[in-house]
Amino acid sequence: MKALAPVFDHIDRNRRPFLDRLFDYLKRPSISARGEGIAETAEYIAGVLDRMGLETEILPTAGWPVVLARRSDRANGPTALLYGHYDVQPPDPLDAWISPPFEPTIRDGRIYARGVGDNKGQHFANLLAIESLLARFGELPCNVIVLLEGEEEIGSPRLARFVEEHRNLLAADLVVTSDGPVNETGRSCLVFGVRGVALFELRARGARSDLHSGNWGGVAPNPLWTLVHCLGTMKNASGEITIDGFYDDVLPPTPLERRALDELPYDVNEIKDRLGVDELDAPTDRSVADRLAAWPTLTINGLHGGYAGDGSKTVLPCEAVAKCDIRLVEGQTRDDVLSKVEDHVRQHAPGVEFVPLGGMDPSKTPLDSPFAEPIRRGIAEAQGEEPLIVPALGGSLPDYVFTKILGVPAFGVPYANPDEANHAPNENLEVERFFAGIRTGAAILTHLGAAVDKRGA
Amino acid sequence: MKALAPVFDHIDRNRRPFLDRLFDYLKRPSISARGEGIAETAEYIAGVLDRMGLETEILPTAGWPVVLARRSDRANGPTALLYGHYDVQPPDPLDAWISPPFEPTIRDGRIYARGVGDNKGQHFANLLAIESLLARFGELPCNVIVLLEGEEEIGSPRLARFVEEHRNLLAADLVVTSDGPVNETGRSCLVFGVRGVALFELRARGARSDLHSGNWGGVAPNPLWTLVHCLGTMKNASGEITIDGFYDDVLPPTPLERRALDELPYDVNEIKDRLGVDELDAPTDRSVADRLAAWPTLTINGLHGGYAGDGSKTVLPCEAVAKCDIRLVEGQTRDDVLSKVEDHVRQHAPGVEFVPLGGMDPSKTPLDSPFAEPIRRGIAEAQGEEPLIVPALGGSLPDYVFTKILGVPAFGVPYANPDEANHAPNENLEVERFFAGIRTGAAILTHLGAAVDKRGA
Repeated sequence: MKALAPVFDHIDRNRRPFLDRLFDYLKRPSISARGEGIAETAEYIAGVLDRMGLETEILPTAGWPVVLARRSDRANGPTALLYGHYDVQPPDPLDAWISPPFEPTIRDGRIYARGVGDNKGQHFANLLAIESLLARFGELPCNVIVLLEGEEEIGSPRLARFVEEHRNLLAADLVVTSDGPVNETGRSCLVFGVRGVALFELRARGARSDLHSGNWGGVAPNPLWTLVHCLGTMKNASGEITIDGFYDDVLPPTPLERRALDELPYDVNEIKDRLGVDELDAPTDRSVADRLAAWPTLTINGLHGGYAGDGSKTVLPCEAVAKCDIRLVEGQTRDDVLSKVEDHVRQHAPGVEFVPLGGMDPSKTPLDSPFAEPIRRGIAEAQGEEPLIVPALGGSLPDYVFTKILGVPAFGVPYANPDEANHAPNENLEVERFFAGIRTGAAILTHLGAAVDKRGA
Repeated sequence: MKALAPVFDHIDRNRRPFLDRLFDYLKRPSISARGEGIAETAEYIAGVLDRMGLETEILPTAGWPVVLARRSDRANGPTALLYGHYDVQPPDPLDAWISPPFEPTIRDGRIYARGVGDNKGQHFANLLAIESLLARFGELPCNVIVLLEGEEEIGSPRLARFVEEHRNLLAADLVVTSDGPVNETGRSCLVFGVRGVALFELRARGARSDLHSGNWGGVAPNPLWTLVHCLGTMKNASGEITIDGFYDDVLPPTPLERRALDELPYDVNEIKDRLGVDELDAPTDRSVADRLAAWPTLTINGLHGGYAGDGSKTVLPCEAVAKCDIRLVEGQTRDDVLSKVEDHVRQHAPGVEFVPLGGMDPSKTPLDSPFAEPIRRGIAEAQGEEPLIVPALGGSLPDYVFTKILGVPAFGVPYANPDEANHAPNENLEVERFFAGIRTGAAILTHLGAAVDKRGA
């Protein structure tokens, strides 16, 4: 294995130009929800990849294009696919930003810009890692495929199909994604999975129009009561989801995952203080780590109907809507769970309209994957500290397209600070985490290549 | 008993000036919710009463003043208190009015103006009845007290105290209120009671701020689930209110009320068509008449929390609010029921904040009150048709201040068309119902006087 010191040295001596180039990328709005700047930004980042010496193409989809780049210097592999997304969230509300979202600014050691954490700053660090390796050695320690999509912030609706249709271009041995924040404690993580998500809406209607509650209450159906009773059949006050068959396919953690979950540093009292609550949500008999990574949830994201002003208005509303998400764990699939919810609603609340709103399947990579150890070593060497082993994130990323469709292990190596404010005003990335990310990317690729060398030897 | 024909003739010959005078009253905004025009309108209507030959005064309250007027021509009574309110609802949304709310206009046989139905047009008809009787006979067939309050549209919060403190000025034998619409079928009614109402709000809080459902769902409490489960303990899907002790004090209808309820012309299929629903609300084993007049209800007027936009947002909201009203029937009191709700919430959902928002007690007058028969005769003579006997309205009016505090029977004799659009844009009163109201007021006072004459004789 080639020594990393010269590469780390190269990164140190290029801090200013690397930051300038990141800023040049961040300046370009690429808001997938509005189609703003998407095509231009895809062209731009493809140009960057091309100039680095990667074979680069922009591939169309039914939505925004995918930028795909590759370099294969090692006949015996492995091939790491680095996933990222060049689109960003809308920057609204604009007036809450201290500096404008597309004018990157450094304050107090942090880069402020829309997309700096989610995810331009993170995948750009990995691209600069490739560049730095090439600058020092003229070749890469393992083969790479870079896949940057332009629709992650609108739910990656066409990624699964893209991956299915381009399997031949995506023949990787593993996937590495740098997105999201490191652990709350600030410690780096190596992430093996994500929960999936199933989204739906429940709509109830009563009479044709709002009515006077005195003249019609108890006679005309009340869609808010309909939703309250429907939702009441879906989760009980002990936190148990009571949708028929809901837990049937949930896979329990493996013994390795069990141990890793138990070792995660969650401090219940600290969490309560931080949230400002006296008690955490039910089911409190499960650990926080389990509830976030190994157990499904049903969250009402919004419920609205009737009067919303001050004081009283004795109205009997004519419609009400609840929006919900279910976080899925290994064993469950989006489509099966949505179909169970639909069946449940049809049976228990036939007057309620069920509207599926998509989502994505969960993803899990075995903790004993042979690629886990070199990635762990890479993170540890670049950052001087062992990463936390995280069996699954609570949130959802489209990793299932790699683990379930391509059938390869997928790893998360997030670089962002926990308070990156992604999806919010004043999104930011600590400058030092950006440079640590570049070093980490270089170290992971180097250790991945060395692992194969060693096995080959 | 003096013949009514000359009075009806007087009314017929004064249609134009009576309408002009009503318009002059309707032109004056008197919006209690905003204090707009209240003092001026009180002065104005007091002037009208004074010029009619009634002993008139404007009495202050802690809120808007009460206009009180009286005339006692008959030493042996009876004394009828005519209740009304000179305040009106706010006219918003203004742009939904075809003609401006304070520029009375006649279209297609209806007077359009804010307050024409609720309640200026109705009590003004009773005042013109007094004037017409005086114009023809120089004296009234019974004694009258006119009480016009300025806070009905904000819930009559000071009326009970006013009545308690001015018992000596309010020594009436009975109360007649002309407010609200006649029966859905268009037929006049004689109303013996109103349901009360108890208003409250339930507030739930989760964490300090909205959270990401993937990162915190199942750990941070969700105030929408808290409210769903709390409300689920208060009323079941069969329509039964399950608040501890809720039905304890409900008095069943008397045999006379039972018969009257059963005779009310509710057509379930017609109601379903009109509402556009396949099924009426539970409990369907009770008749519509019973559910609206003789049984309490619990309506969620509004429930709001979390995301309300299009599509999905995987947010875990930090707060949610439900606003509710309970319609009370005879035997129940506002304060007792609110206290039962509070106890229930404390026991079943200790994290939920209960906020009482007032209301009013129910009111009931016995169907065999000796004043019922002369009032019925008055309506029938003035309108050429027997009124429906309505044991109680579904809605709420502050009649309890008369029946419970003064201890006298209170009758409702509404004049407005069922589609008066009170509390809504384009409020209206059919022109002929206005004149029928003047005739009815005159006939009721005449028959009330005659009944005492007869008993005296």
